[in-house]
Amino acid sequence: MAAVALVQGASRGLGFEFCRYLLLNKSPAAVIATCRNPDAAQHLAALSAQEDDIKRAAESVKAAFGKVDLIINSSAMLHPSGKGETSLRDVSAQAIISTLTTNTVGPLVMAKYSAPLLQKGTGAFGQQFPEKEKQHSGIIVNMTARVGSIGDNAFGGWYSYRMSKAALNMATRNLSIELGRGRSKIVCVSLHPGTVNTDLSRPYHRNVPKDKLFSTEYSVQCLMNIIDTLNIDKTGKAYAWDSTEIPW
Amino acid sequence: MAAVALVQGASRGLGFEFCRYLLLNKSPAAVIATCRNPDAAQHLAALSAQEDDIKRAAESVKAAFGKVDLIINSSAMLHPSGKGETSLRDVSAQAIISTLTTNTVGPLVMAKYSAPLLQKGTGAFGQQFPEKEKQHSGIIVNMTARVGSIGDNAFGGWYSYRMSKAALNMATRNLSIELGRGRSKIVCVSLHPGTVNTDLSRPYHRNVPKDKLFSTEYSVQCLMNIIDTLNIDKTGKAYAWDSTEIPW
Repeated sequence: MAAVALVQGASRGLGFEFCRYLLLNKSPAAVIATCRNPDAAQHLAALSAQEDDIKRAAESVKAAFGKVDLIINSSAMLHPSGKGETSLRDVSAQAIISTLTTNTVGPLVMAKYSAPLLQKGTGAFGQQFPEKEKQHSGIIVNMTARVGSIGDNAFGGWYSYRMSKAALNMATRNLSIELGRGRSKIVCVSLHPGTVNTDLSRPYHRNVPKDKLFSTEYSVQCLMNIIDTLNIDKTGKAYAWDSTEIPW
Repeated sequence: MAAVALVQGASRGLGFEFCRYLLLNKSPAAVIATCRNPDAAQHLAALSAQEDDIKRAAESVKAAFGKVDLIINSSAMLHPSGKGETSLRDVSAQAIISTLTTNTVGPLVMAKYSAPLLQKGTGAFGQQFPEKEKQHSGIIVNMTARVGSIGDNAFGGWYSYRMSKAALNMATRNLSIELGRGRSKIVCVSLHPGTVNTDLSRPYHRNVPKDKLFSTEYSVQCLMNIIDTLNIDKTGKAYAWDSTEIPW
């Protein structure tokens, strides 16, 4: 069966470009594109409804394809206001929780309900080892950001976003351990796309040197090049668009 | 004026012991003990009410003392069920958000409203440099855990707790950068208390060798020894009870 990829957060930005790339270059891959309803995460009561939505989406994919080979968790927000906190004064409990819900909880719940489908994957993405016992069935990519690195953090600010990505990196690590065991191995990595010309970073584009502000096409091309070389030895780490490893 | 310390999460466990220790050994210190209403964090609407509570508490402290020298953010939960997730199947959006609200958002909002009071601190805790420009006015301690280290994570599991502590470590780093500037410097560190005989870890005590299961008294003694040596050069890091640094 042909490769099946699922892109979470596919309505725009990087997620949208991942879908376009996969359809153009990995044909005849089935690409499942999902996006959330941004209003749905405003109340904790809606959280379990959201979890049910993700669960049902996974059930539909199971019925249609029976497997997934690649999941890209791409949906993310900088802050409900559109701008990251420049100082502690801008921090609010509600904004942190909203950001964590979108950037951290969503991808992990996605991984939870997709894991059984990824375990049925046929290893259509990444680079397989010749040894059967080292081969993987599926890949989870969590879109992280360099500013989500605690050790690399030299400037501070952007509390909600940084914290959400640090927590997501922990999720990557946990997933890589739990899902890297057994016969049907799932590779899980965090990838940093660089600073990309999307809505998320738009308020900051004027501060970015032109050659450091990537188009979504260029960024996704770089990230797909990394994905094409992933194997179980590379799981549980964070990589930037240029393949360099990012410290936690 | 005598030293003023504030212990958040003081109703039991380590927070309670920090209060006892400070009153016995740092007399005549004023110790402000706070604790949350665990039911209050169940809805996002209650989040801003909770933030208002913290803000009002800070205003009361300001009126009474005009400063704070030390804040210990001690309140934490393992998981709403009392047991950490052993596998992805146990993960739920609601449980992650509840854990993040208590372990991560609470301490950061506490820091937000206490920062102006800590900047008025008289450096009564820690070890002051002789040079005035390197002296600190106050200290923030975020209670972390070794399992909150992404790099140290070899076993997985405990998704909510691990993610909440990784995000809290990012908050520590951000706070150390923002509050380490200027004239009134605030030192901010994450401290790991070891495995302590408290309600949080109770379901796991039978798996811990006796000499590795600390009493709250012993753990707090070790942590206060670290706090007594803190200065601005040691800010922005995570330390274990034995003073060793923990990787992010």
